[in-house]
Amino acid sequence: MPSHRIEAPLRTLMGPGPLDIHPRVYQALTSPVIGHMDPVYLKTLDRIGEKLRNVFATQNRLTHAVPGTGTSGMEACVANLMEPGDAVLVCVIGYFGDRIRQMAERQEVELTVLEGEWGKPVDPERIKEELNKKAYKVIALVHAESSTGVLLPMDEISRLAKEHGVMILLDCVTSLGGVDVKTDEWGLDAAYSCSQKCIGAPPGLAPVTFSDRALEAARNRKHPIRSWYLDITLLDKYWGSERVYHHTSSSTLNYGLLEALELIDEEGLQNRFARHLKNHKALVAGVEAMGLKMLVEPDFRLPTLNTVRIPQNVDDLKARGYLLEKFNLEIGGGLGALKGKVWRVGLMGYSSSAENVLFFLSAINRALAVQGCKTDLSAGSDAAMSELGA
Amino acid sequence: MPSHRIEAPLRTLMGPGPLDIHPRVYQALTSPVIGHMDPVYLKTLDRIGEKLRNVFATQNRLTHAVPGTGTSGMEACVANLMEPGDAVLVCVIGYFGDRIRQMAERQEVELTVLEGEWGKPVDPERIKEELNKKAYKVIALVHAESSTGVLLPMDEISRLAKEHGVMILLDCVTSLGGVDVKTDEWGLDAAYSCSQKCIGAPPGLAPVTFSDRALEAARNRKHPIRSWYLDITLLDKYWGSERVYHHTSSSTLNYGLLEALELIDEEGLQNRFARHLKNHKALVAGVEAMGLKMLVEPDFRLPTLNTVRIPQNVDDLKARGYLLEKFNLEIGGGLGALKGKVWRVGLMGYSSSAENVLFFLSAINRALAVQGCKTDLSAGSDAAMSELGA
Repeated sequence: MPSHRIEAPLRTLMGPGPLDIHPRVYQALTSPVIGHMDPVYLKTLDRIGEKLRNVFATQNRLTHAVPGTGTSGMEACVANLMEPGDAVLVCVIGYFGDRIRQMAERQEVELTVLEGEWGKPVDPERIKEELNKKAYKVIALVHAESSTGVLLPMDEISRLAKEHGVMILLDCVTSLGGVDVKTDEWGLDAAYSCSQKCIGAPPGLAPVTFSDRALEAARNRKHPIRSWYLDITLLDKYWGSERVYHHTSSSTLNYGLLEALELIDEEGLQNRFARHLKNHKALVAGVEAMGLKMLVEPDFRLPTLNTVRIPQNVDDLKARGYLLEKFNLEIGGGLGALKGKVWRVGLMGYSSSAENVLFFLSAINRALAVQGCKTDLSAGSDAAMSELGA
Repeated sequence: MPSHRIEAPLRTLMGPGPLDIHPRVYQALTSPVIGHMDPVYLKTLDRIGEKLRNVFATQNRLTHAVPGTGTSGMEACVANLMEPGDAVLVCVIGYFGDRIRQMAERQEVELTVLEGEWGKPVDPERIKEELNKKAYKVIALVHAESSTGVLLPMDEISRLAKEHGVMILLDCVTSLGGVDVKTDEWGLDAAYSCSQKCIGAPPGLAPVTFSDRALEAARNRKHPIRSWYLDITLLDKYWGSERVYHHTSSSTLNYGLLEALELIDEEGLQNRFARHLKNHKALVAGVEAMGLKMLVEPDFRLPTLNTVRIPQNVDDLKARGYLLEKFNLEIGGGLGALKGKVWRVGLMGYSSSAENVLFFLSAINRALAVQGCKTDLSAGSDAAMSELGA
């Protein structure tokens, strides 16, 4: 029986996520629903945990997927690691850093906010100054700020945090599976992502990892975590060997996640990172050769999400509406301070392809042209092709 | 390309949920993933809201599905309606009432717990006494306690709450879509359910509804709700006309939910309730004619989840393991105080069928026989057939 009633146009998704998913992931979603305590399913959950450890580059036992979207992963990390009175440093250089700040405030922590310019990374010197001033419990940062397209270099920040014994909470929503996330090497205590970006599954799950130190801190809180749903000491009893019922894990979403993780294994993480980087470079080369400008300086560009400045006198909504209407192509608009100023062009997971790079260049060229903004598509295409090795 | 790697045996799911889902729902899950801000998708979300209003029998504008499992729905209701110092009355007659109690405690409310025997409903007289003692803000109850199989009659409780101006928070996890939930008539202020039981979709979403009074109370809290993810004032801005980005809504899960809601529309709510009741009566008649006993008295039996007492000298785990191994049949074990004492046999949504009733009777007869416990299958089958009109 066909499902006539769902209006689901076949878009090309090149926004900040969700992205297009592989046919095998679609197929996995139709695997028979199974009980959350079924012994066969529990083995499936174990396999997901194992594969996520690989992607997070960690040995952390407590590595799994929270039943919710990426923001539930953020909340799981914030709410478990922070409690009233904790000294917390939140670095805000974009919309999602600000979301962490809002969540931290709700935990009634003793909050210090280190704000930086949107579109630039946080300066480690400023972090150093702050860490010298006060004994922080947690520093929270966004690895890949999907509102600005900045990838934060973590080596120096990790060194500083270790030196000061501060726990690191890292948002990897737009990095995990697309660029290196070195959980153990960087000494991350809590990190989260989502299923629908570089991982390549549908939205609805949030991969998370917690260090033993984070779990220990959660167990020894003075104030019980106010969220029962996201309490990692309870989640650990379901995900871990005790198998105590906590929530009805969605086999459907986890099958999709597992298949996406299998595809990552088959491709190999390093190959996958290289593919993301190559397509990113091609897109940037194309965009720049066409005469458009990137928001972020070359050293800090996120290979998975490209922020392109909207040319003057071009109407953002009209251009994106045109792409959607004429080409079924979704790209993202700017968030917060960057609203109307940038486009966010995602090249993640299955969506990170030469085909999508070239399609975008042609489509944006036309969308700009109809607004009287001329760009040089031939130059753009040549530059992209050369990065693509074609 | 086949997905060889996912081990997903085709169970017959007759536990407390998830249940088997209709082929059209599986098909809907493969509809193309779409962006959470796509205008076409926003219309889809509106349709889901509308259909959920029908199932909840409410005009509440704030009626939608929280991105998480049923327990996230519970937390959304508890965390938004309760804040530190609030006088709250929680009625506990089973595992899920106790889960509400635990969540309420974490909100640091002034908590009164009204405990009753597991397997019986709450006595409205005791609620009346409590409401006369103190000006409560909220009374929290479980409509269909899926740990015990009790359906709580709501008319008198609703009358009392209205009389005292107390807000009602109701767990409808195992009732919504299978038996009457009269949100407006009963004056519910917050109610929640899950996608995978009587609604008939995969797990991962939690239908919720909030009265205008509840939303107003959430807006006027003294203490901001500690959860950002489940804050209904923020969710309302995404679900409502403002369309402010809050989370990446899972089109996959919402397509499944929409198709399941379409199936409910096609069947008609009253027909659906009648089907659930008929199959429940058939199962009970069969079970009792076989010589087994139900936990709950006839007047308070939940048509969607049947609690059958495990006969003496029968090993619970061994019997359920046998059903799973020999017949790919999942039924639920007891929770908490009822562990090892009852089986929980779900007849919900697509799983509520004559076929499943008869299959269960045959299978449990055999599973008991191998443990030396003799039941009369012929009598059971005859009794069930007669209820089924066959």
